[in-house]
Amino acid sequence: MNCKQVAVSKEEFKEMDVEQLKALSGEIRREIIENAYDHGGHLASNLGVVELTVALHYVFDIPADKIIFDVGHQCYTHKILSGRGESFQTLRTEGGISGFPCREESPADAFSTGHAGTAVAAGMGYCYARDKKGENYKVISVVGDGALVNGLSMEALVSSTEKPKNFIVVLNDNGMSISKNNSGLYRMLSRMTTGSGYEKFKRGVKKVFGNSFVTKGMVAFRDYVKRNLNRHNYLDYLGLKYIGVVDGHDMKELVSTLKRLKNTEKPILLHVHTVKGKGYKSAEEQAERFHGVSKNFEDSVNAYSAAFGSALSALAEKDEHIFALTAGMKDGTGLKEFEEKFKNNFLDVGICEEYAVTLAAGLAAAGLKPVVAIYSTFLQRSYDEILHDVCLQNLNVTFCLDRAGAVGADGVTHQGLYDLSYLTSMPNMTVFAPRNTAELAKMLDFATEKNAPVAIRYPNGEEECLVEGEETDVERWEKLTPDGDITVLAVGPRMVNAALRAAERRKKICVVSARCVCPLDTEMLDKIAKRPVVTMEENVLRGGFGSSVLEYYARRGGKYRVYNLAFEDRVVKQASVARQLESAGLTTENLLKVIEEIL
Amino acid sequence: MNCKQVAVSKEEFKEMDVEQLKALSGEIRREIIENAYDHGGHLASNLGVVELTVALHYVFDIPADKIIFDVGHQCYTHKILSGRGESFQTLRTEGGISGFPCREESPADAFSTGHAGTAVAAGMGYCYARDKKGENYKVISVVGDGALVNGLSMEALVSSTEKPKNFIVVLNDNGMSISKNNSGLYRMLSRMTTGSGYEKFKRGVKKVFGNSFVTKGMVAFRDYVKRNLNRHNYLDYLGLKYIGVVDGHDMKELVSTLKRLKNTEKPILLHVHTVKGKGYKSAEEQAERFHGVSKNFEDSVNAYSAAFGSALSALAEKDEHIFALTAGMKDGTGLKEFEEKFKNNFLDVGICEEYAVTLAAGLAAAGLKPVVAIYSTFLQRSYDEILHDVCLQNLNVTFCLDRAGAVGADGVTHQGLYDLSYLTSMPNMTVFAPRNTAELAKMLDFATEKNAPVAIRYPNGEEECLVEGEETDVERWEKLTPDGDITVLAVGPRMVNAALRAAERRKKICVVSARCVCPLDTEMLDKIAKRPVVTMEENVLRGGFGSSVLEYYARRGGKYRVYNLAFEDRVVKQASVARQLESAGLTTENLLKVIEEIL
Repeated sequence: MNCKQVAVSKEEFKEMDVEQLKALSGEIRREIIENAYDHGGHLASNLGVVELTVALHYVFDIPADKIIFDVGHQCYTHKILSGRGESFQTLRTEGGISGFPCREESPADAFSTGHAGTAVAAGMGYCYARDKKGENYKVISVVGDGALVNGLSMEALVSSTEKPKNFIVVLNDNGMSISKNNSGLYRMLSRMTTGSGYEKFKRGVKKVFGNSFVTKGMVAFRDYVKRNLNRHNYLDYLGLKYIGVVDGHDMKELVSTLKRLKNTEKPILLHVHTVKGKGYKSAEEQAERFHGVSKNFEDSVNAYSAAFGSALSALAEKDEHIFALTAGMKDGTGLKEFEEKFKNNFLDVGICEEYAVTLAAGLAAAGLKPVVAIYSTFLQRSYDEILHDVCLQNLNVTFCLDRAGAVGADGVTHQGLYDLSYLTSMPNMTVFAPRNTAELAKMLDFATEKNAPVAIRYPNGEEECLVEGEETDVERWEKLTPDGDITVLAVGPRMVNAALRAAERRKKICVVSARCVCPLDTEMLDKIAKRPVVTMEENVLRGGFGSSVLEYYARRGGKYRVYNLAFEDRVVKQASVARQLESAGLTTENLLKVIEEIL
Repeated sequence: MNCKQVAVSKEEFKEMDVEQLKALSGEIRREIIENAYDHGGHLASNLGVVELTVALHYVFDIPADKIIFDVGHQCYTHKILSGRGESFQTLRTEGGISGFPCREESPADAFSTGHAGTAVAAGMGYCYARDKKGENYKVISVVGDGALVNGLSMEALVSSTEKPKNFIVVLNDNGMSISKNNSGLYRMLSRMTTGSGYEKFKRGVKKVFGNSFVTKGMVAFRDYVKRNLNRHNYLDYLGLKYIGVVDGHDMKELVSTLKRLKNTEKPILLHVHTVKGKGYKSAEEQAERFHGVSKNFEDSVNAYSAAFGSALSALAEKDEHIFALTAGMKDGTGLKEFEEKFKNNFLDVGICEEYAVTLAAGLAAAGLKPVVAIYSTFLQRSYDEILHDVCLQNLNVTFCLDRAGAVGADGVTHQGLYDLSYLTSMPNMTVFAPRNTAELAKMLDFATEKNAPVAIRYPNGEEECLVEGEETDVERWEKLTPDGDITVLAVGPRMVNAALRAAERRKKICVVSARCVCPLDTEMLDKIAKRPVVTMEENVLRGGFGSSVLEYYARRGGKYRVYNLAFEDRVVKQASVARQLESAGLTTENLLKVIEEIL
């Protein structure tokens, strides 16, 4: 199925009237749906901002003016309107355009994004630099309501009482973050939707007293209250003038509001209400499920996420101390069923990864067994909380890292290729990589019972290794084929399977599932030291599993030969997982080649 | 000089009257000052909370009730009152008690702290666990105004509209974080200091209308406004009832307020005003300088911080694109003079490390040359911002990591022993470790001109290596002694000097300053590969410099012999820096021993 291209020149676009802009939005919306059908991607969030993005491009001068999309999973309309309509069919594919804003790709992408909460801070950086350099452009940070309560967003928002001029924060409010948003800050903003406190007060005065003489006598009084109301308006303290609420699907209102804002220098918070998934019925009704969709809208239940959810439910049946936490990834991490069954032992804190981890530390210090389920790429946002709050105190917190390793189409910003490096350098940490979903369940059982921090990392996908060894202790590695003239230490199902396929083609390869990445199984390492060793892992080479094997042998002394297969390149762009693994040499073919070279 | 001990039994303490509590506070204050004179420590912050802590211990039942001190640099009175009066003289010394709350040390320390922003999240964890377990105790999180605006604090505060019951957040407001606090949230809170909006409103009514019949007719009206004011009171949205402001040095008021709070289940934010450094004149007047003091109150200007400040000022004289950022560490990082000279090119964002880094990314994207000065232990709080916002976009941001390596008396939570591991695993990152202050200046020059991320890490201290080699390119390593039968690759001044001292005692040791830790000087590594190599670094072994040398040689193939000296233990407690280095074998003596074993 081919996507149509939205063929319109910048000049034609700038001369459109509101009706034509509406029609264009319709075309773009259809293109996004068709494209998502072919390539997957963030459907619902992109459908929600079509009109908003068209209006922003129409009113402002992109790329002279800078738009920064927080998270960036709503940038498709922006890409189409900034010269990437023709390449839009290559979205999220190898050599094609990224699913997220990317500075390398176009000057219209002022700041590369992917993780939440960066747009206000980056936007302020742009403003300060612009003013220092005596330049003159607008900076527009588009932030969803979910990302607004991320710690980084809030730090940027509250950091100073004066915001730079010519700065517009567009709050793209669809009433849900990735999951539903229940935060205090959000509720405060949503209460503003019917007008400012002062407007309400005025209506209140009229309601109580009508237009009688009493009302007139209230002038001094009114001004006094107005001052007080303003003083208690949070946004005033943030140095932003609040404008809202604008209907994010009403092109006329959007264009006229933005034109007004174009002519003011005041820093603004523009509150826009949008409907996630707008215009695509299934997406609108099931916005969370359709947040990210796979190709052809197939049901994208990840085997490992599902297994994690079931295993955790089974544990919670037996042990009421199990407590599950996630940070806006309830469905993605497989916790939906758990939440339904164990509502009181579950908390989704929204896109607040740091809070999730330190909250877990508090729960553990007080005697519960918290399990924190966060994608590998997002857990790195809690580096200090893992080290300082959990590991240094050696607390019983279990981290479940979904989407670890190569992630495919999401690309650069979402790769789970750093966790083995940072987790294994922390004190008291045990790190597991199961070779199949059954082993994940077993490790989860072990982890929640071990009175210390444990991380379990597993990929997004279906691939399982079903070959079994004889070792039952999950802290020990498992030999899956007999001793040979070389040993392959493989981490995770895809690596173990690649090694097993190599062992089928060339005899005498001893394949070991190095399932406990940290601490190392040093007894096994001692045994195999006399033969060459190849390590295979979906992680950057620097500081990863292979490097810890080198450290061990170097410390141990004596002779050893270790060859590390891992991602030497630390920036891995979008492509299929298979191609990403190929680029790093993490395939059966390359393993066989390497073995030939070594022996 | 000996410290007196505050000798009072728990029973005697609990029966004291207000006058006796005041006298006790005076004693404790004197003890803290005397002790800080002997051992250094956080003088000003501790003096500010003497009465508050005495009152908390007096009213609540510690350790049954839980007090969590945010940051923890105000816990001395708490330590004295919870059975550690006798060991108080061992504060911050090897084998003695830690300068921060520490769960291992006492059941009264409900949560170990050191970094900012954790207390609200951890306190909520305690509350949720308590309620699930059907237990019954109060949880009190004591948070300074500076830590309150840290992203983690705010995530915990705004995360839900309902806070757990029996939870008290004590806002210890001294009107400054480590430096002065200028944030919006803080100003909002400080405006509340003269009473709630409603109280002001009531006074306003009286002022305008007196006690006339009009005032009486205002009842419906007043209630309406009260509702509106409340709705715009930020704290209501956070699910906390605001109580304040209490004078934190008025024992009578503190005790009576806390007694009242003891009998309510409502979640509370108690706003206490304290004076940092209270009772010690120099500390009160120069609170920031006396935030942390060295032994005998000697002037603790760190040579590397001072050199950094001067070098950056020199650069800014020539280049107006230089922009300095810090996160509440202006004095500590040596930026005080820079701020005075280049006010418009300087920003202290408060304890918001994440914001500092993403703001820097924005500044760099827009064409400035930001330099972010943060202690090693605190920069790890920005792991994701460094990786996702700076490194993936390959932006021109320079990170200056003060207090890298062993930190001495501050101990476990403040060690700068992880940065080489996490920084070197990030894409596009260059990591430098100068061997003296002059080299730091040279590297800073290089870094701000390199259009890519660069980190420079240097220790707290005076030690410089003044031996010079011939290599002028800072990206290449420098050979400081002639070729020998073994090569020592040393990182940073203390390691280089230890190796040079070894070379004086045993000939034929080739000492190399491995000043560019990442990327490695592979040309040098190729040249020295035929002889054994010892690496020395103030970092954990796992994923550090030595391990990257192993990775290189393993990838290169051929024979090599590398021995890594680094911190194998990843939890390093308080002691002198010399003793910490000794414990890790990072001394001349041990190097000579290791060399004998190898050869």
